[in-house]
Amino acid sequence: MLTLFHHPMIAGCRFIRLILGEYGEEVSLIEERPWQRRKEFLQLNPAGALPVLLADGDVPVPGTNVIAEYLDETRGVLRRDKRLFADDPFERVEIRRLVDWYLVKFDSEVTRHMVRERIFKPIMPTAAGGGSPDAGALRAARGNIRGHMKYTNFLTGTRNWLAGPRLTYADLAAGAAISILDYLGEIDWQASPAAREWYARLKSRPSFRPLLAERVTGLPPASHYADPDF
Amino acid sequence: MLTLFHHPMIAGCRFIRLILGEYGEEVSLIEERPWQRRKEFLQLNPAGALPVLLADGDVPVPGTNVIAEYLDETRGVLRRDKRLFADDPFERVEIRRLVDWYLVKFDSEVTRHMVRERIFKPIMPTAAGGGSPDAGALRAARGNIRGHMKYTNFLTGTRNWLAGPRLTYADLAAGAAISILDYLGEIDWQASPAAREWYARLKSRPSFRPLLAERVTGLPPASHYADPDF
Repeated sequence: MLTLFHHPMIAGCRFIRLILGEYGEEVSLIEERPWQRRKEFLQLNPAGALPVLLADGDVPVPGTNVIAEYLDETRGVLRRDKRLFADDPFERVEIRRLVDWYLVKFDSEVTRHMVRERIFKPIMPTAAGGGSPDAGALRAARGNIRGHMKYTNFLTGTRNWLAGPRLTYADLAAGAAISILDYLGEIDWQASPAAREWYARLKSRPSFRPLLAERVTGLPPASHYADPDF
Repeated sequence: MLTLFHHPMIAGCRFIRLILGEYGEEVSLIEERPWQRRKEFLQLNPAGALPVLLADGDVPVPGTNVIAEYLDETRGVLRRDKRLFADDPFERVEIRRLVDWYLVKFDSEVTRHMVRERIFKPIMPTAAGGGSPDAGALRAARGNIRGHMKYTNFLTGTRNWLAGPRLTYADLAAGAAISILDYLGEIDWQASPAAREWYARLKSRPSFRPLLAERVTGLPPASHYADPDF
């Protein structure tokens, strides 16, 4: 069985769990706090970052993008019309572009800051950077959400799924990031009706269930978080 | 013919040019200053980031990683033993891990800060963030170089090329980042003899020549920069 070192509030980790869920792969989850820099964990991934998959034969596969490509090459290609990727090189370009958009750009402008300030800093020791949330960082991240949701609303208003007619990695990457912000009550769904309809379809999928059931200690989710008819 | 929107001092852009050079692909280069946010450029890549490749049929392929995968799928697979990637999924994991290391981790801890402070800020308008270099940012980036060069020295001391016996994307990604820092005279080669021998082999390749010939206006390179026997 596969093993995934992850944290429930890191978008890349959610993305990989959604892929595994869609492909029906059983996975053993190990929650890791990357700021602790555990020696055994650093041996698996010298970069010290999550997620890390222990693949077939317990070979470590480190990093969101590296894991996603590995799973496509060893699982996705066998799924025919259930594959979460595409055969055509230009469709692959569009899927990878959007995965990067939500897990690199959106992450560096919004998600990672929101999670660090609101979830990680309260539980991190001061020496590792813990403490009170930085109001300036929160304000900047909140200011950036609107543009990204506008873009998501545009894409979902013109396509059935984010990268085209079929569900792909792009939807799972966007859903991974947006679900974390939705937990934190940071998404204004009134302003994004097409994105809301798309996200309702996405979060109704069985692959989303385990994510929607998780709770951060001391920080309950927005009331509509786990409700597919929000 | 392919067209690449690039900047000579962004590591991801150098990486793509090295791939194209190794594959003998002719490319028309257009230098772009991403902080200008040109309207025509944003239409090609709404993310506003470099590099962007105009591929066959002038379809835009945006982002380092997306372009590298596209070039492997449309060029690399046809090259047999000259392919800069691998067939085996776990060899692919190691190559992608190292590309991420040098173009994401090393970039966010060293390269991007060094380039912003020493190259971009002096030519950027104040409104776009231009001005004098931030001594604290430079000090932090310099402090991070040593660990990365130690790791590079370790890898190159135990393997013929960075990811194993053959030249791959991993070498071109690392060479792209390190060559920018070497231009700026920021690499202490005395401390990294194995990395130095590897880099001398790499920069002797014809694909490196156009990069070594370029100059930043008003900022000459370190004296050994273009010398293969440095």
